[in-house]
Amino acid sequence: MNVEFINPFLESLNNVLSTMASLELTPGKPRLKKDEKAQGDVSGLIGMVGPQTKGSLSITFDAALALEVMQRMLGERPNEINEEVTDMVGEITNMVTGGAKLILGEKGYDFDMATPVVVSGTGHTISHKSDGAKLIMPFTSDFGNAHIEVCFDK
Amino acid sequence: MNVEFINPFLESLNNVLSTMASLELTPGKPRLKKDEKAQGDVSGLIGMVGPQTKGSLSITFDAALALEVMQRMLGERPNEINEEVTDMVGEITNMVTGGAKLILGEKGYDFDMATPVVVSGTGHTISHKSDGAKLIMPFTSDFGNAHIEVCFDK
Repeated sequence: MNVEFINPFLESLNNVLSTMASLELTPGKPRLKKDEKAQGDVSGLIGMVGPQTKGSLSITFDAALALEVMQRMLGERPNEINEEVTDMVGEITNMVTGGAKLILGEKGYDFDMATPVVVSGTGHTISHKSDGAKLIMPFTSDFGNAHIEVCFDK
Repeated sequence: MNVEFINPFLESLNNVLSTMASLELTPGKPRLKKDEKAQGDVSGLIGMVGPQTKGSLSITFDAALALEVMQRMLGERPNEINEEVTDMVGEITNMVTGGAKLILGEKGYDFDMATPVVVSGTGHTISHKSDGAKLIMPFTSDFGNAHIEVCFDK
């Protein structure tokens, strides 16, 4: 996986959250994911298909962080991960991937996006089953952690 | 969502499991999913992108059924959902979607597949965030339940 693929996703998540929720996450060091399994409570996933490559992206949030983003974006704070929260996580996933797609398109890497899917379940883990390297980008905040995982098969 | 889209996925799952694991699942009645949330322990997800439509598919298994399929396909039975099991669920997801893609391609519905992603976590739920109808196909067996969900945005 080309390292040029990383930053657009990282920038795009912080753009979306700062614009929509006035929230800045602190990015950690991106790393290649081997055996590591990142856990979270609610995740948005999206498939990507392009002429040169295909892959998948996930954005995973701790429940407390997802609820904080919900309150900041929509002014309401449910007690649990309900359908409004999964809708919001699906939208964020779409916006982050769409933002990265624009930046990568300018560099000559084109892909189309599938529709997002949101998983909810306390402490679930995600495994991307592409042939290529898996990249994990951790983010921390006062409200909980998030991470993006991206992988492309080339 | 066109009803012609349903049967190829249903047939494809039973083809894959009978060929690879000598296991027949009993299909229940496919239905439109509204508020219903199907739960499971390990799920394979894949994005689909075509010129006419895009969407997502998930196949969710109870842990006991996934471990039975593992034993029948690979002759080993781990005590829990480990990386071998998630690899197998990713492969099944690829094969089922690939089988349906062939059948649908003959009918003039073309799509490309992203790479699969596998979620593990006891009792997680999946929400497909496409604009179109969501279809859920339940399957039962002596070992546990499975279900396929498919949705396309048109």
